[in-house]
Amino acid sequence: MSIDRARLRWNGWGWVDHPDPTAASPDIWARIAEAFGMEALPSTPAKRLEEVDLPRPRLSPDVLSRLESEARGAKISTDAFERAMHARGRSYHDLLHLRAGNLEFAPDAVVYPAGAEDVAHILSLTSENNIAVVPFGGGSSVVGGVTSKSGAGQSGVISLDMTRMHRLLSVDRIAMTATIEAGIYGPQLEEALGSHGLTLGHYPQSFEFSTLGGWIAARGAGQQSNRYGKAEKWFVSARLASPTGPWSTENFPASAAGPRLGDLIVGSEGIVGVITDATVKVHSKPEVKDYRGYLFKTFADGISAIRQMAQHGVPTAMMRLSDADETWFFQAFSTSPSSSSSAFTSIAKRYLALKGFDDRPSLFILGLEGDRETIDYARHRSGTIIKANGGFHLGTGPGDRWYHSRFSAPFMRDPMMDHGLGVDTLETATQWSNLEKLYSAVRDALREAIAGTMPSPGMRGVVLAHVSHSYTDGASLYFTFIFPRNLTQELDQWRTIKATASEAIATNGGTISHHHGVGEDHLPWLRAEKGEIAMRTLAAIKRELDPKGILNPGKLLPSA
Amino acid sequence: MSIDRARLRWNGWGWVDHPDPTAASPDIWARIAEAFGMEALPSTPAKRLEEVDLPRPRLSPDVLSRLESEARGAKISTDAFERAMHARGRSYHDLLHLRAGNLEFAPDAVVYPAGAEDVAHILSLTSENNIAVVPFGGGSSVVGGVTSKSGAGQSGVISLDMTRMHRLLSVDRIAMTATIEAGIYGPQLEEALGSHGLTLGHYPQSFEFSTLGGWIAARGAGQQSNRYGKAEKWFVSARLASPTGPWSTENFPASAAGPRLGDLIVGSEGIVGVITDATVKVHSKPEVKDYRGYLFKTFADGISAIRQMAQHGVPTAMMRLSDADETWFFQAFSTSPSSSSSAFTSIAKRYLALKGFDDRPSLFILGLEGDRETIDYARHRSGTIIKANGGFHLGTGPGDRWYHSRFSAPFMRDPMMDHGLGVDTLETATQWSNLEKLYSAVRDALREAIAGTMPSPGMRGVVLAHVSHSYTDGASLYFTFIFPRNLTQELDQWRTIKATASEAIATNGGTISHHHGVGEDHLPWLRAEKGEIAMRTLAAIKRELDPKGILNPGKLLPSA
Repeated sequence: MSIDRARLRWNGWGWVDHPDPTAASPDIWARIAEAFGMEALPSTPAKRLEEVDLPRPRLSPDVLSRLESEARGAKISTDAFERAMHARGRSYHDLLHLRAGNLEFAPDAVVYPAGAEDVAHILSLTSENNIAVVPFGGGSSVVGGVTSKSGAGQSGVISLDMTRMHRLLSVDRIAMTATIEAGIYGPQLEEALGSHGLTLGHYPQSFEFSTLGGWIAARGAGQQSNRYGKAEKWFVSARLASPTGPWSTENFPASAAGPRLGDLIVGSEGIVGVITDATVKVHSKPEVKDYRGYLFKTFADGISAIRQMAQHGVPTAMMRLSDADETWFFQAFSTSPSSSSSAFTSIAKRYLALKGFDDRPSLFILGLEGDRETIDYARHRSGTIIKANGGFHLGTGPGDRWYHSRFSAPFMRDPMMDHGLGVDTLETATQWSNLEKLYSAVRDALREAIAGTMPSPGMRGVVLAHVSHSYTDGASLYFTFIFPRNLTQELDQWRTIKATASEAIATNGGTISHHHGVGEDHLPWLRAEKGEIAMRTLAAIKRELDPKGILNPGKLLPSA
Repeated sequence: MSIDRARLRWNGWGWVDHPDPTAASPDIWARIAEAFGMEALPSTPAKRLEEVDLPRPRLSPDVLSRLESEARGAKISTDAFERAMHARGRSYHDLLHLRAGNLEFAPDAVVYPAGAEDVAHILSLTSENNIAVVPFGGGSSVVGGVTSKSGAGQSGVISLDMTRMHRLLSVDRIAMTATIEAGIYGPQLEEALGSHGLTLGHYPQSFEFSTLGGWIAARGAGQQSNRYGKAEKWFVSARLASPTGPWSTENFPASAAGPRLGDLIVGSEGIVGVITDATVKVHSKPEVKDYRGYLFKTFADGISAIRQMAQHGVPTAMMRLSDADETWFFQAFSTSPSSSSSAFTSIAKRYLALKGFDDRPSLFILGLEGDRETIDYARHRSGTIIKANGGFHLGTGPGDRWYHSRFSAPFMRDPMMDHGLGVDTLETATQWSNLEKLYSAVRDALREAIAGTMPSPGMRGVVLAHVSHSYTDGASLYFTFIFPRNLTQELDQWRTIKATASEAIATNGGTISHHHGVGEDHLPWLRAEKGEIAMRTLAAIKRELDPKGILNPGKLLPSA
């Protein structure tokens, strides 16, 4: 197995023994309590697995023994840790359940196939026996994408853990593509490609704990999507196992031989087939990585600069613009030891005031990757546009700090949840012409919903936002919200906040997700977004490929 | 109507009164005869419409009067010219039929809707009466994409001519998108956008006689696809009328809300719905257009240079590389008045020989479009790569000549067909690592098939090829072949050549079409290319959206 499961938290983010990122600075907790209007932070530890009851496994000994004899390479587990680990993904909502010891949806068994043949055998046997199969990569879904639920009338549910399928199958250095098994984790994938001098360049925040198959199935985006592309852009083709049979999707650089049906797999969330391997576009490892910070007087100025860079084809890797609150928050709660070199020293503040900046600027991180000439050209062109929009260059310090902590935010959630705080994120995308309207609407909706669900008067949450992915026609918005948890009704509190924000997205022209996916959590808003005909089309595809509806029931489409 | 149909040829390319491009240089015909091993070129004029019998229209007076009363904006015609004009597309195969006066598949009526409501009414009425509907834009299909055939058991066929729907509906200057009715011709579209300082930049060779809806439905590519993208890249969303109801596809810059089902429309060839309007990505009109010629010693050297430019992200608009035979042919038969400035003056030849060029170089046209800075950067970076691959700069002369005659090749076909010659083209795409193998296989297959179908010993054809569209992972190959027609069995001759080339494509890793589409002509090779599951998926989508199979029967999928 590529990552020893026993080293991972079954009810939180990452390694069991990951050092507490807040431990070294206890004063931060006092400042956090103050920021949220709390006198003190309560202690709200998660239940230990030993305290939790799991549902009785439903698979018959006959089915288990047939699994063993037919899927010969597969490992099969029914132990409590494996079942608990695979019960749900890693959303805030999931963690509320897991930390409370609610394992109602633990799978009846966890099966780790060794190869595509195993997957085919497993789908054949589960089809025959009407057992649900939930494809599982890193399990890092934050939208309820891997909740181990069976559909109506199904006799059990298997979590199909793909992480033993992690081989780099082939590299085509001329076409700059690679074919890789779907269960490979981010670090393994980059290590395997790196030994050829290559990179996929897909670095989502979940990079360390998510897999290639998951990135494709959830239509994910890496932080450097401007250069390397969102999954739908770097995806070339996949091989799938479906209950109807194997499918190798189209693998041409471009074609007019009908619609490219393989594109349906990107965002399919495991409901029509299990991705066993995929061919993806790769790049030479970049010669240079150049990450810099800038300040804009307003969020709108920064948005304008990003739009112009995207529309002028400036070859950037990442353009990440925080709104004023996010800029302030990360500055205030920075745990960086080098805070004296931060964006907000008092000298810098005075200087910025002279330049017409108030106390609420927007921090912009511009990341460039590639060969020296590309970087020089991009620096020159981006510099002109940033300057024209009033941006102020902070140098490489903020860029380097962002880069070195680019995967660390999720590690903050467990300790915060141990202290009575909730942390969730959501994201959307829209056209440039609608971006500021959507931003205000969702931010305000989140603020109101959080204010309306505070456990006591005087308590308050924060809503932070940034633009992180951009296109010629629009961009994404990413919201992080942190709030005192209403411990007596914390699921209701989450549902209220989530529904209010989702309504604001839906009624203000945003998509319900730019890169997290749909899962169960976004399903109520999907039909209105995609329209009746699109949903009928999706259902028709599902019926054709998975006629019994055994694959990931209830995700992306209502369960039959 | 946007183009007066009466001004167009019903059985050939373009305007009735288009000047014969060969008329000014009669000696060319003698040289052509010699090149093809023919003593003289026969006279093989097309039949005139007056000499041709059309099938009796099958639509009942009741249906026609209901069409008139329900689709109130629509114009309906059953006259011979309109029916003949809409019988088929404009492939060589189509022209063999049309010029011979074979109008077996003329539609029973031609209907021109004025808007989306008309289209909805027409689909409702034709569904009810089981009448086939063939969506028709410019009718320039070269793959049998608009042959007016009804399916089994259907009581008639209507050609749905979309060209009265040609309004620019809206422009979003911030998001750089425009929403345009689907029946707009290329020149109208660029004129409408041009008045806003914008361009779509989609200039296929058929630009003057093809429409937005057709470009999307056939998954087409413009000559400057490196900058502006193939249809699937500039397509944002569409509104469709389908027998199941209206569909507005997803219109976000990016999303993870499931697969983007709107992508299915690109390449759908009218079999699931009629595109009534589309939102597309637009650009500022380029400040600079810079087209230049280069020579490479070999086709392989040129391919290597294009690959490196594509993979290094050099911002080109067009990279077009002719093989040695195409380079020679267009030089030999250039009708350009400025031939003294051509690539092959004797002085230049002597100079090139000194540089190690033999008589069989490959001509490369590099087109750059954009703002001054982008062009300067692209010239610098492309220059380095071209030089490293042994390319020789010819200046802007060959580039300008190519640019000024970029739509003229199709006009040559009619006069050649009047002189006993056949001209056809086909195209494919594959990975860079397979491009030279595919090129040789298809070229050799075409040469052999043509040689095997010559009407007399000593006669011969020519096979010309170029690379015209490129991606990071591969490129397209475009073949033009010209041959003495076997007048007693010209359909068999075409079928033999087409099948032989298509087999060579299929067995050597190419797609059956990069940008022409599938239609009827490529259908025999589609299932093997896309695979059983993909074809079942496509059929399931068709059944859902067009349960009676009235839309464009027999294209892209076998007729029910």
